Amino acid sequence: MQLAHATWPEVEAYLAKDTTRGIIIPIGATEQHGPNGLIGTDHLCAEFVAKGVGEVCNAYVAPTLTYGMSQHHLGFTGSVTLRPSTMAAMVRDIVQSLNVHGFEKFFFLNGHGGNVTPLKAAFDEIYADASLGANPAAFKTRCMTMMWQAGGRTRALAQELYHGNSGMHATAAEISLVQFYRPDDIKHVEMSPKVAPPHTDFFHSLDYRMRYPDGRIGSDPSMSCPEHGERLLKATVTDLSEAYQAFLAY
Amino acid sequence: MQLAHATWPEVEAYLAKDTTRGIIIPIGATEQHGPNGLIGTDHLCAEFVAKGVGEVCNAYVAPTLTYGMSQHHLGFTGSVTLRPSTMAAMVRDIVQSLNVHGFEKFFFLNGHGGNVTPLKAAFDEIYADASLGANPAAFKTRCMTMMWQAGGRTRALAQELYHGNSGMHATAAEISLVQFYRPDDIKHVEMSPKVAPPHTDFFHSLDYRMRYPDGRIGSDPSMSCPEHGERLLKATVTDLSEAYQAFLAY
Amino acid sequence: MQLAHATWPEVEAYLAKDTTRGIIIPIGATEQHGPNGLIGTDHLCAEFVAKGVGEVCNAYVAPTLTYGMSQHHLGFTGSVTLRPSTMAAMVRDIVQSLNVHGFEKFFFLNGHGGNVTPLKAAFDEIYADASLGANPAAFKTRCMTMMWQAGGRTRALAQELYHGNSGMHATAAEISLVQFYRPDDIKHVEMSPKVAPPHTDFFHSLDYRMRYPDGRIGSDPSMSCPEHGERLLKATVTDLSEAYQAFLAY
Amino acid sequence: MQLAHATWPEVEAYLAKDTTRGIIIPIGATEQHGPNGLIGTDHLCAEFVAKGVGEVCNAYVAPTLTYGMSQHHLGFTGSVTLRPSTMAAMVRDIVQSLNVHGFEKFFFLNGHGGNVTPLKAAFDEIYADASLGANPAAFKTRCMTMMWQAGGRTRALAQELYHGNSGMHATAAEISLVQFYRPDDIKHVEMSPKVAPPHTDFFHSLDYRMRYPDGRIGSDPSMSCPEHGERLLKATVTDLSEAYQAFLAY
Amino acid sequence: MQLAHATWPEVEAYLAKDTTRGIIIPIGATEQHGPNGLIGTDHLCAEFVAKGVGEVCNAYVAPTLTYGMSQHHLGFTGSVTLRPSTMAAMVRDIVQSLNVHGFEKFFFLNGHGGNVTPLKAAFDEIYADASLGANPAAFKTRCMTMMWQAGGRTRALAQELYHGNSGMHATAAEISLVQFYRPDDIKHVEMSPKVAPPHTDFFHSLDYRMRYPDGRIGSDPSMSCPEHGERLLKATVTDLSEAYQAFLAY
Amino acid sequence: MQLAHATWPEVEAYLAKDTTRGIIIPIGATEQHGPNGLIGTDHLCAEFVAKGVGEVCNAYVAPTLTYGMSQHHLGFTGSVTLRPSTMAAMVRDIVQSLNVHGFEKFFFLNGHGGNVTPLKAAFDEIYADASLGANPAAFKTRCMTMMWQAGGRTRALAQELYHGNSGMHATAAEISLVQFYRPDDIKHVEMSPKVAPPHTDFFHSLDYRMRYPDGRIGSDPSMSCPEHGERLLKATVTDLSEAYQAFLAY
Repeated sequence: MQLAHATWPEVEAYLAKDTTRGIIIPIGATEQHGPNGLIGTDHLCAEFVAKGVGEVCNAYVAPTLTYGMSQHHLGFTGSVTLRPSTMAAMVRDIVQSLNVHGFEKFFFLNGHGGNVTPLKAAFDEIYADASLGANPAAFKTRCMTMMWQAGGRTRALAQELYHGNSGMHATAAEISLVQFYRPDDIKHVEMSPKVAPPHTDFFHSLDYRMRYPDGRIGSDPSMSCPEHGERLLKATVTDLSEAYQAFLAY
Repeated sequence: MQLAHATWPEVEAYLAKDTTRGIIIPIGATEQHGPNGLIGTDHLCAEFVAKGVGEVCNAYVAPTLTYGMSQHHLGFTGSVTLRPSTMAAMVRDIVQSLNVHGFEKFFFLNGHGGNVTPLKAAFDEIYADASLGANPAAFKTRCMTMMWQAGGRTRALAQELYHGNSGMHATAAEISLVQFYRPDDIKHVEMSPKVAPPHTDFFHSLDYRMRYPDGRIGSDPSMSCPEHGERLLKATVTDLSEAYQAFLAY
Repeated sequence: MQLAHATWPEVEAYLAKDTTRGIIIPIGATEQHGPNGLIGTDHLCAEFVAKGVGEVCNAYVAPTLTYGMSQHHLGFTGSVTLRPSTMAAMVRDIVQSLNVHGFEKFFFLNGHGGNVTPLKAAFDEIYADASLGANPAAFKTRCMTMMWQAGGRTRALAQELYHGNSGMHATAAEISLVQFYRPDDIKHVEMSPKVAPPHTDFFHSLDYRMRYPDGRIGSDPSMSCPEHGERLLKATVTDLSEAYQAFLAY
Repeated sequence: MQLAHATWPEVEAYLAKDTTRGIIIPIGATEQHGPNGLIGTDHLCAEFVAKGVGEVCNAYVAPTLTYGMSQHHLGFTGSVTLRPSTMAAMVRDIVQSLNVHGFEKFFFLNGHGGNVTPLKAAFDEIYADASLGANPAAFKTRCMTMMWQAGGRTRALAQELYHGNSGMHATAAEISLVQFYRPDDIKHVEMSPKVAPPHTDFFHSLDYRMRYPDGRIGSDPSMSCPEHGERLLKATVTDLSEAYQAFLAY
Repeated sequence: MQLAHATWPEVEAYLAKDTTRGIIIPIGATEQHGPNGLIGTDHLCAEFVAKGVGEVCNAYVAPTLTYGMSQHHLGFTGSVTLRPSTMAAMVRDIVQSLNVHGFEKFFFLNGHGGNVTPLKAAFDEIYADASLGANPAAFKTRCMTMMWQAGGRTRALAQELYHGNSGMHATAAEISLVQFYRPDDIKHVEMSPKVAPPHTDFFHSLDYRMRYPDGRIGSDPSMSCPEHGERLLKATVTDLSEAYQAFLAY
Repeated sequence: MQLAHATWPEVEAYLAKDTTRGIIIPIGATEQHGPNGLIGTDHLCAEFVAKGVGEVCNAYVAPTLTYGMSQHHLGFTGSVTLRPSTMAAMVRDIVQSLNVHGFEKFFFLNGHGGNVTPLKAAFDEIYADASLGANPAAFKTRCMTMMWQAGGRTRALAQELYHGNSGMHATAAEISLVQFYRPDDIKHVEMSPKVAPPHTDFFHSLDYRMRYPDGRIGSDPSMSCPEHGERLLKATVTDLSEAYQAFLAY
């Protein structure tokens, strides 16, 4: 169920009966995904998977956070970043707002690896206000984030489909998922080398661009196809639904 | 054209030829819209209209900002607010990011009245950094915001359709537009009184809820229908395309 | 009554009897006002009018906020700006301070158009802390701002005196009011063109200076005289006193 | 010369000839000053003295900062505080603004002891941006603050007039100065004890109120009179003019 | 070499010859470490290991950051936390300071798992200022963090010494290392159960205390002894020296 | 007693019996101290003296804050500064953390003059939250700072040892104290002139370096020796223990 497509009396009625206190918040990014990946790949994936998990778990899905922490991608046209401090403020405001209504468990279904540390720092900023006695209300808040690729079924399937070439950015898996979500936006682009340079540590955007000239890390997204996307969606919705239910049970 | 559905080489190629330096950023809210209005009304409207304007003007449309400044709606379940300071940080980061790539004119196509003052304060925060010599790069930035309802054709049509009952929040016009955008989510709800209490000044969320018990201000959204939405879309896309072109010409 | 000219036992005694909980806070700016307007025009006007309203309404008038949000005027020597975020912090601190003593209704009597959006963003920042449950004490706070030129009598009189040449900045009306307040500081300056270029959208300080070479927008301040100032003062004190009383009755 | 009473072409002409690059900024507070002291005492003193120093030194005097860091006085009605962080933002914005026009030496003529540490912290915040390479423009900025009571002549005169009862807050000296500045606002109040409890360390507002029940520290302001104020003004204007000239020579 | 024990001419001479531009910054925490672990365990370990790595690599070691992000430990007496935002400010200031002198590669040798995400968020905050064009100087900055337990030799040794009972907090390994560093502060405490409850997700301090009643997670620190500490030190200094050299080679 | 060398049950047991609610927090700096002074001089002194005071007073000593506000020293290699705002955040977090456990009186034993104003501003930031009603818990907090050189015995001894050449920075007294603390790090350096230029006002780091070419202010640290350090330690531990006890009695 999409929060955006409900009315306030519907949400009020839901919360009157719901005992989980949980809600799903998809978060992604707006950043380059190599020669054939869409700039919206990460938030499109998060949104698509969250929709499925919300249906399976009868949970509300909040509107997608379409921008993420992508400073390292700014060397490629079209990429946008939020500073970590901005993301922390955004997460705090959304969590505090939903907490006013009675939601207490916030599952940030994440499509972008670069969001993980700023999200966790944001959670600790919220908890610190509780733990330090500055905002005892925050003791009612629990946050978790998980990437859609992180579940067992999904990882196994990506391994089966792409062997050693799953890579780290602009992967065949995420591009396949988007191709299934948005078949009209499939791009056919030759890539050279076929498999992108492998993952190393990187720092800022100049550094990233020097290491990964077309934006990909370790991946071969020419292997993408919508049929893979369909299978990956099924796997990840099952994985993430399990993870969400486990989170609710904490 | 949706930025989210493009690849980075496509955007790079576009900017190599484009002389306008402009981009459209839809911004809305996640907040109650009365008994039959969707919580996502404001960002759905902004997104829908921005898509049309982007096509007419051959401009990129950035991913939608789905949350806005809605503190006064927090008395109604499901509403979410960003603090004005959070919105200012978010706007600054997005504008600075796109400015790195060469975009210089930022048109925030707005679906929510409550965003107007925090958006303008955010713009002045950016300009102040230029004017004070702290960030001369910001002299290359121009921002504008306009609500989709604000153009002449759209106002005339809303007046024609709803006479004196256009109201201020959860209006028949915005709900009609969403009904045309998302016909599967039309809600049929009896409302009493038929026309909501008229607009007055209001302050925080307790105050708002006391003044407007079901969330509407001065409106009769039972008059909404998808056909109105279709006509309103056409009017506003024309209005806003004109406004966007005028902004580019500054 | 000026808060600055009272002792603390006097204010304590006043609040023990007062049931309005209101206070008036004049706010202006320190910025260029064209060839013959004083840099302090906006805060001098706000201070002068507030004094009158305080007397009519038996209300305390807090010390004048002499600096405002004037980033667009920094191309002209002597102009000073506060960033919107600075103004928000200043307004929050003053409101919280006076709230400790029992004042609950804060009327920011404003002399500068550029303050309107940052002031309203500041109010929403305060309300958001209440609405989000972070500072429930803020539910006792109500803020309003109104420009001294905005009342019906004052607008009618300015129209009568200056016809179509009231303009938007460095207006004959505000300069007349200051000439009546500070007759020793009247400046006689030739201006060319007589009527300044009309209002358009503007952005940062370089942009503003290019559009309005001597700082005025659409005005002919050579029409100013202290006698007009006297009549304008009378009109605005009546207008604003009505507005203040109406605000107290909310 | 008052910056507020000049036009921008006058200030531009002044700076074209001036080689000192200096400006005086009066700063005070809005806080209780015992049974007969005005709430505006500190900013009235700063403003009054600054006017004199500006005339002696042919320097511009910026509009008075009427609010200061007064958290410890909030136990007494009418007192207002800025947080130190708010004051730092305000000082930074004003200094950066005036620096754009060519002012480089900022003399904060201070009427309130509680402002000293937050002002100095604010100066170091500005210098740190220069020293850390974040804002090299700030290397052109020099700030100083001095209390009007701190010069040799003034201290000697206060000692002569009030002997051992000069005290620390709501002193006979500051109240005399205000009585000379604003003779219509002289208050006649019996005080008991005649001399207030002596200065000790204090912390927050509850603590301060407990230690100093009527707000005074160590003073006997019943000794105040406008004639003392006249003599004190003469002494302090001489003292502070010397100090300002010495600062310009650094 | 300890930066704290050098003079400025010595550091200047070092940098004139050094081509690595690297420096080591130990960071730990001040937080409970179970019944027999010292509150300073994490920063003592980081300091001890950093000293060794500095000697092996001929690198300066900056003074230890003794406080970390420990909000989850605040349910146990003596624990102190920095908010993530505070840590980000602290890291930014230290990195910017050392960058002024010519250091460019910052290796945060970390003794506390809870620091990892706020540290990485802090690094991205710095890089974002470079990538967004706000502070191009930051393009000269590269940061890395690694926990002393994370190298291959150290993990193998801990596995050899403690088998499946290495645990996650108040581990035998870290307590052994501290016992070797500070033999006078060895505490003999009976613990029940011998092995602490296993690691699960946790959130804020109330939650943590409920899950782990004596503060330990999954560990049996009764196995600690100084001899283990000596062997662990040797292993980790080798591991971390390799990691530091690899970082310099990026 | 060092907090870092205690276990949490030990601190809990201490607080169950302790009625003072006090704790000592050493704070220094990482900054140049002239040709023969260690960069860590200020935090080494604070740490060394705090250890002695903690023993005399049976009080816990928190881990040393090794970095301070040293922007003016950044012209000399190896110096590090925290911005005043960063120090305020750090102090707030540490005080709030220890307050959760029952500590209420915080004695910042200070080794660096440049910390005084940012520390006091930080204290007022904490108190303001109490006084303004934003965080009533802060009414339980009292903070004090004192430099180790400030007591009567210590000043008399420094005068006896160094006569008129005590100076202001890189003093013989502080360097003697460090020589006694760390005899292995004594540096023998010729200095010219023997006595450094006298103290004047200074501003940012370029300005400081110009005035004091080798970093010293008014001092002759060639007079330092460990024996002086021993005598100074004894004097200051007595002075500061008295001051700490007096603070507890407030």
